Amino acid sequence: MPTPSLLILPGDGIGPEVMTEVRKVIDWFGAKRGLSFEVFEDLVGGAAYDAHGTPLTDETMAKAQGVDAVLLGAVGGPAYDTLDFAVKPERGLLRLRKEMDLFANLRPAQCFDALADFSSLKRDVVAGLDIMIVRELTSGIYFGEPRGIIDDNEGGRVGVNTQRYTTDEIRRVARAAFELAKKRGNRVCSMEKANVMESGILWREEVQWVHDNEYPEVELSHMYADAGAMQLVRAPKQFDVIVTDNLFGDLLSDAAAMLTGSLGMLPSASLGAPMENGRPKALYEPVHGSAPDIAGQGKANPSACILSFAMALRYSFDRGDEATRLERAVETVLAQGVRTADLMQAEGGSPASTSDMGDAVIAAL
Amino acid sequence: MPTPSLLILPGDGIGPEVMTEVRKVIDWFGAKRGLSFEVFEDLVGGAAYDAHGTPLTDETMAKAQGVDAVLLGAVGGPAYDTLDFAVKPERGLLRLRKEMDLFANLRPAQCFDALADFSSLKRDVVAGLDIMIVRELTSGIYFGEPRGIIDDNEGGRVGVNTQRYTTDEIRRVARAAFELAKKRGNRVCSMEKANVMESGILWREEVQWVHDNEYPEVELSHMYADAGAMQLVRAPKQFDVIVTDNLFGDLLSDAAAMLTGSLGMLPSASLGAPMENGRPKALYEPVHGSAPDIAGQGKANPSACILSFAMALRYSFDRGDEATRLERAVETVLAQGVRTADLMQAEGGSPASTSDMGDAVIAAL
Ligand SMILES: CC(C)[C@H](C(=O)O)[C@@H](O)C(=O)O
Ligand SMILES: CC(C)[C@H](C(=O)O)[C@@H](O)C(=O)O
Repeated sequence: MPTPSLLILPGDGIGPEVMTEVRKVIDWFGAKRGLSFEVFEDLVGGAAYDAHGTPLTDETMAKAQGVDAVLLGAVGGPAYDTLDFAVKPERGLLRLRKEMDLFANLRPAQCFDALADFSSLKRDVVAGLDIMIVRELTSGIYFGEPRGIIDDNEGGRVGVNTQRYTTDEIRRVARAAFELAKKRGNRVCSMEKANVMESGILWREEVQWVHDNEYPEVELSHMYADAGAMQLVRAPKQFDVIVTDNLFGDLLSDAAAMLTGSLGMLPSASLGAPMENGRPKALYEPVHGSAPDIAGQGKANPSACILSFAMALRYSFDRGDEATRLERAVETVLAQGVRTADLMQAEGGSPASTSDMGDAVIAAL
Repeated sequence: MPTPSLLILPGDGIGPEVMTEVRKVIDWFGAKRGLSFEVFEDLVGGAAYDAHGTPLTDETMAKAQGVDAVLLGAVGGPAYDTLDFAVKPERGLLRLRKEMDLFANLRPAQCFDALADFSSLKRDVVAGLDIMIVRELTSGIYFGEPRGIIDDNEGGRVGVNTQRYTTDEIRRVARAAFELAKKRGNRVCSMEKANVMESGILWREEVQWVHDNEYPEVELSHMYADAGAMQLVRAPKQFDVIVTDNLFGDLLSDAAAMLTGSLGMLPSASLGAPMENGRPKALYEPVHGSAPDIAGQGKANPSACILSFAMALRYSFDRGDEATRLERAVETVLAQGVRTADLMQAEGGSPASTSDMGDAVIAAL
């Protein structure tokens, strides 16, 4: 079997510094566990714009299509806020998602016991929380045509975006959610606004169809997305797997991540169809953003990006055992009390640096 | 001056029983404060469908256009879940909003001190919370064309909805937000997804334009809606007025309402342009829904609907003094420990009924 390949795209802000720690972890798996990777590195987002005038070059896009998995840090920052829409850092990320057809975005919202008190929610509401949000990632209002800003010829303008979902797009992400549920709590809650949007009606009907025809043994419920936002705040532990569209998934998964008090800890996987070698197209990235306010200061928490590599071990490289090893190491480090600044209350002593945290994880492996 | 007129639409589920209490309050203001209203009552939602086969008749629509303010209970329920989209109870409410052109939906998210412990969030995160969400209510993806479900002629279907915002639509709701901010904390935060949607770019630019040209003295910030969902969970007190579009406003205002622990307490006002008599077109309704699980049992909390009438006193009838009197009465009742079932922890003694609560408010007036 050929050596598996990884493309690393550190991106902007804290992306490069957290990725340095992930590379240490990758090297450790090569040296100690005989798990070698061919690693490439390239630019994305603002960094690619600075070098090439585009947030993602065709060359980088081609490389991403050719590897077994892509690992991304973060994109964006205020330096790029005034750029034209077409060359914003985010467009690089969206192009990767779209052209690799990464339709299932897996966002675990997990509350690490050592961090439960760090949540703005009461301990008993979040302790032990472990839900999985499956967000559709390649369609909906993010990508639908027509779109744009047009002049109305009377001095005004009209901003237009289109939500468009097909039967196939809904069914394939629903399948991903049911498959995950089978390995977890066996429950899926689907969220849309079928009371207001026809695309929500289709969403509900097609998810129900997949359930009735292919996964009748999994428990399925439906909830309006506004009620879903409420219930996530009120009693998040009622959920196991949530499946929802691109836009609702963006808001709901961020809210869910924040509930846990562990924002700097949360990874994500974006998966597409299987490639010739049987592995799914895949991109892994932390849920947090580029955090420009602390970039370059060695303050960032590398855990989310390290745990994103753990997801790669599980979903791309079929090494759930090694993924669990890495996840346990991160939990051990937390239990030891190692804390980057984001994991500390206001007066909590002196924080661990980005590299302290990375080193501690390696020591715990 | 002619007697001001009110159209009462109790609607479905707990709507009728909470509205009974509001009528007691209205009668009290007539008898004791010389504030008389001509009150009409009619059907909306599932109740209108049952009687007339449509969730809102043209006659009711015309009445709503002719009165000074509309007070609505709630619409919807599982009995109507399988109805066609066009006659769903929600369509009655959406028609009212659209034809009355109620573009500014004001949703205060306020944490009543006596209820702070009832929130799933820690007391210090929510105690004293008092934010105002201004949601655009007559445009965006709720109403944009084209929309529908179409067959793709290959056995599949496509669900389509369109988000469309014009310069004028954005500016008028932005003005409503800035006006409110001037009477409150003087700060507006506008939320969109300008990194992903062109309609979000237009939103950001037009809100900024209204600020720079008409309200430079108000502090304006912009936030992506996903980050907004996070920040509402993390530290909601950072906000004063939030202005956002119809769909984001639906999710964000529900999440904000749930934060307070006071869902059964929260009112809303939906305002349009001034009528000939200078009063804005207006509809008032509680944030909570029709709660079919407890309907008809005398368990519902009438406070949100009573406080919606207080908003009517303030925004439609220019009686901020009487609105404050009514709001204080509700707070007094809470401080006295009167609690409907929704305001009690699991083992909390025996709850007040819907009419107990209404009577207590009147006694406190
Ligand atoms: C950066 C941005 C384009 C992106 C999104 O909106 O999808 C982000 O918020 C996310 O959730 O990954
Ligand atoms: C009932 C429904 C149509 C409505 C909406 O989506 O606007 C409700 O959720 C609300 O927020 O008032």
